[in-house]
Amino acid sequence: MRIYNFNAGPATLPEEVLDVIDAELHDWQGSGMSVLEMSHRSTEFTAIATQAEADVRALLAVPSDYHVLFLQGGATAQFAMVPLNLLRGKSRVSYLVTGEWSRKAVEEARLFCTVDIAASSEAERFTTVPPRETWQIHPDSAYFHYTSNETIHGVQLPAMPMIDSIPVVCDMSSDILSRPVAVGRYGLIYAGAQKNLGVAGVTVIIVRPDLVGAPQAGTPSLWQYHLQAKQHSMLNTPPTFSWYVLGLVCQWLRRQGGVAAIAERNQRKAERLYAAIDASTLYRNPVQPVYRSRMNVPFILARPELETEFLRDARAAGLVGLQGHRSVGGMRASIYNAMPEQGVDALITVMQDFEQRHG
Amino acid sequence: MRIYNFNAGPATLPEEVLDVIDAELHDWQGSGMSVLEMSHRSTEFTAIATQAEADVRALLAVPSDYHVLFLQGGATAQFAMVPLNLLRGKSRVSYLVTGEWSRKAVEEARLFCTVDIAASSEAERFTTVPPRETWQIHPDSAYFHYTSNETIHGVQLPAMPMIDSIPVVCDMSSDILSRPVAVGRYGLIYAGAQKNLGVAGVTVIIVRPDLVGAPQAGTPSLWQYHLQAKQHSMLNTPPTFSWYVLGLVCQWLRRQGGVAAIAERNQRKAERLYAAIDASTLYRNPVQPVYRSRMNVPFILARPELETEFLRDARAAGLVGLQGHRSVGGMRASIYNAMPEQGVDALITVMQDFEQRHG
Repeated sequence: MRIYNFNAGPATLPEEVLDVIDAELHDWQGSGMSVLEMSHRSTEFTAIATQAEADVRALLAVPSDYHVLFLQGGATAQFAMVPLNLLRGKSRVSYLVTGEWSRKAVEEARLFCTVDIAASSEAERFTTVPPRETWQIHPDSAYFHYTSNETIHGVQLPAMPMIDSIPVVCDMSSDILSRPVAVGRYGLIYAGAQKNLGVAGVTVIIVRPDLVGAPQAGTPSLWQYHLQAKQHSMLNTPPTFSWYVLGLVCQWLRRQGGVAAIAERNQRKAERLYAAIDASTLYRNPVQPVYRSRMNVPFILARPELETEFLRDARAAGLVGLQGHRSVGGMRASIYNAMPEQGVDALITVMQDFEQRHG
Repeated sequence: MRIYNFNAGPATLPEEVLDVIDAELHDWQGSGMSVLEMSHRSTEFTAIATQAEADVRALLAVPSDYHVLFLQGGATAQFAMVPLNLLRGKSRVSYLVTGEWSRKAVEEARLFCTVDIAASSEAERFTTVPPRETWQIHPDSAYFHYTSNETIHGVQLPAMPMIDSIPVVCDMSSDILSRPVAVGRYGLIYAGAQKNLGVAGVTVIIVRPDLVGAPQAGTPSLWQYHLQAKQHSMLNTPPTFSWYVLGLVCQWLRRQGGVAAIAERNQRKAERLYAAIDASTLYRNPVQPVYRSRMNVPFILARPELETEFLRDARAAGLVGLQGHRSVGGMRASIYNAMPEQGVDALITVMQDFEQRHG
């Protein structure tokens, strides 16, 4: 039986995507081989790679001069690659800290330069985002970096912050393709694939071309954006199968009506779940409503001793991956693009039944 | 129809491995989800990852204190990671150059230190390996590096070179698990998976623990072996599906009788193909026989104008991926572990038929 998988990433895929992978597994479109076995230089894989890039560009309306790269290493690799490539002779950068992931990005960037914290909500235990007017962005910063959605704390910026003086870099690992974004206003966007884009092993980087080309001395070739751009992300063998799945997910999303359509569905899913939480006395979400994430919904039980039983009941109903991150505890439902509305409804039913029995 | 895929990598998988992937694709062992969707921290994926590591250790008889890592970036990432981690206060390293891949490893290492060329067969157009007694290994080298098999030129070292004074590092991307190796005599072995280990996206690193722990300042966290070792290669989300396929390939290899058994089969396959080449007047392999690769068999046609027709005939017979690397031209048959003996026999038949018609 297929379950509903609420894990934060790697996460559930659309069932239709699994069906396509399955149908093509032994023999991709009459090629006589699996995508798993294809040379990255073959006509077949070139077609797959090119189509995936075209679909990302179409879905996000990426300006045509921007590079779209498909690299290895996840967002964590980008925590280093971004400063290594974007410092361009400067020595400081500004970061907004709204949760665990932006904090990690700061730590890694500190290996390479001075990192100024524009603002942080750590004192509020990451239950909010500091008001824009309090942010201090150093004018000599090579760029400003933020994390649009924090998976562990369930905090999401409702819109892109207004910053015009320096390039804006955004880690969109957990909400890319979940809502429309004005890509042309960013200097660089990056996202590990294993939440909204597909499976682990590939990371999408969308970057304004004038920002790359002058990496720090001693930056490994593989990590120089401009070299990868010149080689269409094939400076060496790319993660072919993850790239293929990413393409299938993009195709699926286009069939759903694209980013605007999925954004509406995501809003419905999130609103329904937060409404159920707010209407209960057993469950509570601590995040200031305007910054509540539509992708990751953490909730705590008023009686923590019931957590194990809650997870057991959920599993019995076919819902898994609901345990909160080990650093914060409680529960968390990750409801990315691929989580069907029925999955959210099933979760709400389990929550309400459980509360009735333990209310 | 399933074809025989002679590509150099990504390369053919054992058909049995594809069958297992297919059977488990929608629902891995009753978990209700695909491996593609599994949290890397889940009980299920932990079992997969642990088993794959155990199988690599068993197949290669890895000394128990050595770390076995599963990282992203391919061998090209290792070209940088090796010097970044293994210099340990030294400033020079020694490299043997026997083809395109060792030359690339040298270029990348030069970003970080002085690289002494112990010996090179470039003047012989990489058709041989310089005799051991001519190698100059600088006594202050942090390590000695070589490439056990060169995929483009089809050159393979028949055995590990005797070097006792400094740690030996080997790029085994294209012949790992193809024959027994005394792992304990190496400081570090690395191998991209897409030839003998599985699919692109994961790289195995086997390293003696005393060599890691003092990376160069400014080495990104993700690229510090000792940090990855501490986290069992999960400093961030690993390439879960590639790791899983690697495990299935190891299981398959164990069922074949392990490395010693596959080495015999590989020898038979290679000997048969070289014998056919040597017996012909149309085909020629330029490599000195003792250094001929058992994994990649390049051959040129005495009449190069026939190449296109040869490739067309081969394709019509269900054999693909035989075009030589663009840098050297001619033909190349990659016959890794997963290429069945019948595939080699089919190739020989095509070659002989073609020669009869054009002799």
